[in-house]
Amino acid sequence: MTEISELGEFGLIRRLTEGHETVQSSTRLGVGDDCAVLSYPDSDIVVTTDMLMEGIHFDLQYTPMKHLGYKSAMVNFSDIYAMNGRPRQLTVSIAIGRRATVEMMDDFYAGLRLACSRHGVDIVGGDTTSSLTGMAVSLTCIGNVATGEAVRRDGAKETDIICVSGDLGAAYMGLRLMEREKEIFNRQREEGMEAAQPDFAGREYLVERLLKPEARRDIVERLAEAGIRPTSMIDISDGLSSELLHLCTQSHTGCRIYEERIPIDYQTAAAAEEFNLNVTTCAMNGGEDYELLFTVPLSEHDRVAALDDVHVVGHMQREALGCVLVGRGDGAEEFEIKAQGWNHAEKSGTEA
Amino acid sequence: MTEISELGEFGLIRRLTEGHETVQSSTRLGVGDDCAVLSYPDSDIVVTTDMLMEGIHFDLQYTPMKHLGYKSAMVNFSDIYAMNGRPRQLTVSIAIGRRATVEMMDDFYAGLRLACSRHGVDIVGGDTTSSLTGMAVSLTCIGNVATGEAVRRDGAKETDIICVSGDLGAAYMGLRLMEREKEIFNRQREEGMEAAQPDFAGREYLVERLLKPEARRDIVERLAEAGIRPTSMIDISDGLSSELLHLCTQSHTGCRIYEERIPIDYQTAAAAEEFNLNVTTCAMNGGEDYELLFTVPLSEHDRVAALDDVHVVGHMQREALGCVLVGRGDGAEEFEIKAQGWNHAEKSGTEA
Repeated sequence: MTEISELGEFGLIRRLTEGHETVQSSTRLGVGDDCAVLSYPDSDIVVTTDMLMEGIHFDLQYTPMKHLGYKSAMVNFSDIYAMNGRPRQLTVSIAIGRRATVEMMDDFYAGLRLACSRHGVDIVGGDTTSSLTGMAVSLTCIGNVATGEAVRRDGAKETDIICVSGDLGAAYMGLRLMEREKEIFNRQREEGMEAAQPDFAGREYLVERLLKPEARRDIVERLAEAGIRPTSMIDISDGLSSELLHLCTQSHTGCRIYEERIPIDYQTAAAAEEFNLNVTTCAMNGGEDYELLFTVPLSEHDRVAALDDVHVVGHMQREALGCVLVGRGDGAEEFEIKAQGWNHAEKSGTEA
Repeated sequence: MTEISELGEFGLIRRLTEGHETVQSSTRLGVGDDCAVLSYPDSDIVVTTDMLMEGIHFDLQYTPMKHLGYKSAMVNFSDIYAMNGRPRQLTVSIAIGRRATVEMMDDFYAGLRLACSRHGVDIVGGDTTSSLTGMAVSLTCIGNVATGEAVRRDGAKETDIICVSGDLGAAYMGLRLMEREKEIFNRQREEGMEAAQPDFAGREYLVERLLKPEARRDIVERLAEAGIRPTSMIDISDGLSSELLHLCTQSHTGCRIYEERIPIDYQTAAAAEEFNLNVTTCAMNGGEDYELLFTVPLSEHDRVAALDDVHVVGHMQREALGCVLVGRGDGAEEFEIKAQGWNHAEKSGTEA
């Protein structure tokens, strides 16, 4: 392992950034000056930023640096796609603690570069500094969208239908799994036992969803190919409940979604049962799914429902009717959706 | 004092960002969606990012939060001006430790907003999160420049003259002063004495340069008004030596600057004497001045020398002649400029 002090700050930056050509025609100047220079004469620009802190957003005990780099980038790309944009440039700031090695940074950048190459994104700048304590990562992603075509959170209409991509709750179950295994591992070591490496056979999907999420470019492209423009869109980072409330609040609508329609993978369901958790709670509040939640006009119902990996989960309604989750089966109970959880809702007159 | 947990993350973000109108016509959508939306159809875009870590870049014992916010913004604006750009939008990510209060965040944002309002910049996004340890701040600034008019580090010619704005070394002397007073204060408290508040009378300029630097928009505007386009430019954040070497390396030139021409304020000189430091060393290596270092063609000498607060400090030369500092007086010694300090240079044949 190589100490970072052997290279120095400039040496490390050179090692991490040199010899990588930019690929986007909009990148006029990349790393190596006071600023990057970009050119977007014919489209709008979308910008998003995220900060990830060690101990809050990631645990280096079970997060490989390469995965951390990959995920950090994907989280930002996901925000760009959620605006109907395409990611093009990324700036990467990273503060590293005393325990960090050059090889750890190489791995982090390998993950970043893999994510960037898959989505055609240039790394155009950043900052590398030291931290007295844990690691901090801050990324800003810049993308573009045809002029006026950005999809915001506030465009949903009362009659729109609500769609979700992929499936929900798996990353949260992956997190629970990792936390449990970490506890077992640490306890075994404290007791002086040889700690066994955890076996995730049959739960690979959950671990992958936690450590290596994929931003849903495919969904945005599929919608564009079908000529369907969502009226509102958001990515699911904090959980379906929270994101639904964002769309409803900003669009001044209520919503009505159906528990039985929420897409859940069988590994998620099996793990929820094992942990004695309500799987719908996990899907509604788990977070970190990085799926897309969007609304389309009712007239697009059949076309959007036919799209691969897109699921219609409910519909918008008048704001006064509130945000409601309808339980499974006949004579189902209704629940009011809250940001973290949901409560029994009073049955509304029109919806028996 | 109000605990941040009383407001929650969303409550804090609302408090810090609500009710602030955007002023830039290029800002199509600000805070409150997955991304900000910007429009720059008729110019190039410049992007810069900086990360500031508690204990590395700032010490909360003597850095008021309002100053920290102000400086964080200015440091980024400075990079934009150093490209010949104008700052327009800012994203603000901040990770806050357990000791942080709502009032501290209010003060930080008050400083940010003051800097932004002075430079006409919109805050268009960001991320607010918690930190297990110290505070971390990451800002990204977006600006614009007429298409093709960005001034890079690599455009200097061998015959260009070298200019510096303002004066150098004051922020470094301010830092030394603050560190000394902090030590005295802490020692007095450890000894159970009532610690006296330090008196900075006669050194106000040094303290202000450290805590409240000003990005040099005025210089960039003055150059534009005079119709002088620098061939290369950089802002002085790491010290004159380091920045000169960046320009020379990237432009494939050497340089020759004159010690007697380096602009130094009398408070800086007086403090250097008090601390028994070589004032030129402080100016060359001190850093955090946020002045502009730039080159212009020799033909512009008289016009640039006539500009208010611009100082001609030397000239570029052939790369083979190296980077040289010429000492004061007749028969002056010559020194090779190195990134941190400089050594005796072998006298070159042509320069006796």
